[in-house]
Amino acid sequence: MTDFDFNFWCAHQMDWVERSLNHWVSVSVCAGLNHHAPADLMAAMRYAVLDGGKRLRPLLVLAAFEAVSSGPSDWFIPIEEDVDEAARRGGDFESGGGVDETVLRAACAVELIHAYSLVHDDMPCMDNDVLRRGKPTVHAQFGEATALLAGDALQALAFELLTPESPTLIPQRSVLLCRLLARAAGCAGMAGGQAIDLASVGLPLSEFELREMHSLKTGSLLTACVMMGAACGDASLKALDALADFGRTVGLAFQVVDDILDVSSDCVTLGKTVGKDALQDKPTFVSLMGETRARAFTRDLLDRALQALLASGLSDTRALQGLARMVVSRSY
Amino acid sequence: MTDFDFNFWCAHQMDWVERSLNHWVSVSVCAGLNHHAPADLMAAMRYAVLDGGKRLRPLLVLAAFEAVSSGPSDWFIPIEEDVDEAARRGGDFESGGGVDETVLRAACAVELIHAYSLVHDDMPCMDNDVLRRGKPTVHAQFGEATALLAGDALQALAFELLTPESPTLIPQRSVLLCRLLARAAGCAGMAGGQAIDLASVGLPLSEFELREMHSLKTGSLLTACVMMGAACGDASLKALDALADFGRTVGLAFQVVDDILDVSSDCVTLGKTVGKDALQDKPTFVSLMGETRARAFTRDLLDRALQALLASGLSDTRALQGLARMVVSRSY
Repeated sequence: MTDFDFNFWCAHQMDWVERSLNHWVSVSVCAGLNHHAPADLMAAMRYAVLDGGKRLRPLLVLAAFEAVSSGPSDWFIPIEEDVDEAARRGGDFESGGGVDETVLRAACAVELIHAYSLVHDDMPCMDNDVLRRGKPTVHAQFGEATALLAGDALQALAFELLTPESPTLIPQRSVLLCRLLARAAGCAGMAGGQAIDLASVGLPLSEFELREMHSLKTGSLLTACVMMGAACGDASLKALDALADFGRTVGLAFQVVDDILDVSSDCVTLGKTVGKDALQDKPTFVSLMGETRARAFTRDLLDRALQALLASGLSDTRALQGLARMVVSRSY
Repeated sequence: MTDFDFNFWCAHQMDWVERSLNHWVSVSVCAGLNHHAPADLMAAMRYAVLDGGKRLRPLLVLAAFEAVSSGPSDWFIPIEEDVDEAARRGGDFESGGGVDETVLRAACAVELIHAYSLVHDDMPCMDNDVLRRGKPTVHAQFGEATALLAGDALQALAFELLTPESPTLIPQRSVLLCRLLARAAGCAGMAGGQAIDLASVGLPLSEFELREMHSLKTGSLLTACVMMGAACGDASLKALDALADFGRTVGLAFQVVDDILDVSSDCVTLGKTVGKDALQDKPTFVSLMGETRARAFTRDLLDRALQALLASGLSDTRALQGLARMVVSRSY
């Protein structure tokens, strides 16, 4: 097995994700329209998506794909041309050496769903937040109506990304990716989790109920990332089960860390308002079990996530391991 | 060619659409969850979708499918078992005599996108409307946050409907349906049109600009209906071009009629607030060309739509003809 440098891997993948998002979330979608408003809407969509995300979800998609792809990956072949160059030549991403177009589309589609959920979640009728990733939130910058539409259009664009006219995308895979993403985003996934969140303000929740809320609100999309990455390659049922377990566990760890950061970090580091959970009297893992127990819980969850990878039978899960560690040790 | 009774056809198709929507937009989506909130969210989604829509969009999907399906259709074979019965037997819609599951899914998916757009459009930050289909709007009934989430979850559910695990759905068709719907709903379609609408309040628009706004805001989804119906069957390129022309023309006619009804109808008949366009100083076809010319324009558009059907080369377009006439003569 070749040497693996997680930081190098992350930087390399992030670069592709950023360039792909920049390419696909583009005013060229509005080409041919005469009125400026759709392009202005796209500007709000780009503002919501570009510059500033951790890209954890796309990285999970890419790492899961790498884990299920047999043999040493060719992701480390130096890329000879960039996305823009490939686009200029009339081609698409498949011509950029060592990059699989399907998995890049899947990675970006998940990020668009995540970005739309943040835009809507920050709106006055939801969390009413004005700071995100160190910038004014979309509605603070562009107004509420545009924020609402930008979120809606980002969700549509996610599904458009997964169903291109490209001959390189196998239809069966396209359908599976759409299904995984739609279910994770919908009523029995992310949106349902947000509904529980809304219904829980000021109410006592048991740890069980809190877990269910987060398993939907955050966990379903994080689990979908891992499953979508796996769906871009070929994985055994045993591996899929283990990866789903990994996704759920990392999703839970992500949320516990979020709760810890909300009480222990500051606005500048976190890039968003801190201390809001306590202010809104929202139940959190910290309010429920205290900060010390919550921190110990994240370490347990990391162990369980790594165990799941061992149980998967996959030979190279180093990128997934690195991401799980990153989730637990992150400071923002 | 068999006799064709448009009213009978409509009633028969509407019945299937209502039952299918009732079946698919269902709390069973939230089965297995312990907290009540996702089921409550689903209640808001059902409120938005069921009881009261004209179902023009699903009917267009079904009519276009019928037009491209060769030979006399079997849609008129008496249905021996209903959807619930089929579901109880563990099957799905394919066992209900004379009903094509794919086209029903396409019809319902479009309606979900339409329903979500109404929910978001009625919200205070958009049109701020409290009456729709004679009932309080979703945010008036369930609160703004739930309305926002219900719209979001309806959009996700639309794409979930198009990508089932069913072996009866051809993956290539699934992908095409998702693509058509996502593009029609997104930034260069419905959402883009709404952005133009927002940007146009109080501004003079030329007839050309007004047409572009509506071709996106309403026309793109109505055109997608016809194309999605055609995509469920087999159509020649010539037929597809003609059907797209038909869809665009009917879409425009729909909007002109909407503008006429806004000045000439009343709340009870229309089921929504009237006179809002003038109040908000929104440009309309009536404000631009006067009511008399606008009415003449709708007749011209009907003629053009019927011409497009003649040009399609399709042998039986009677359902589509009936729908075009219905759009122009509707009183609500």
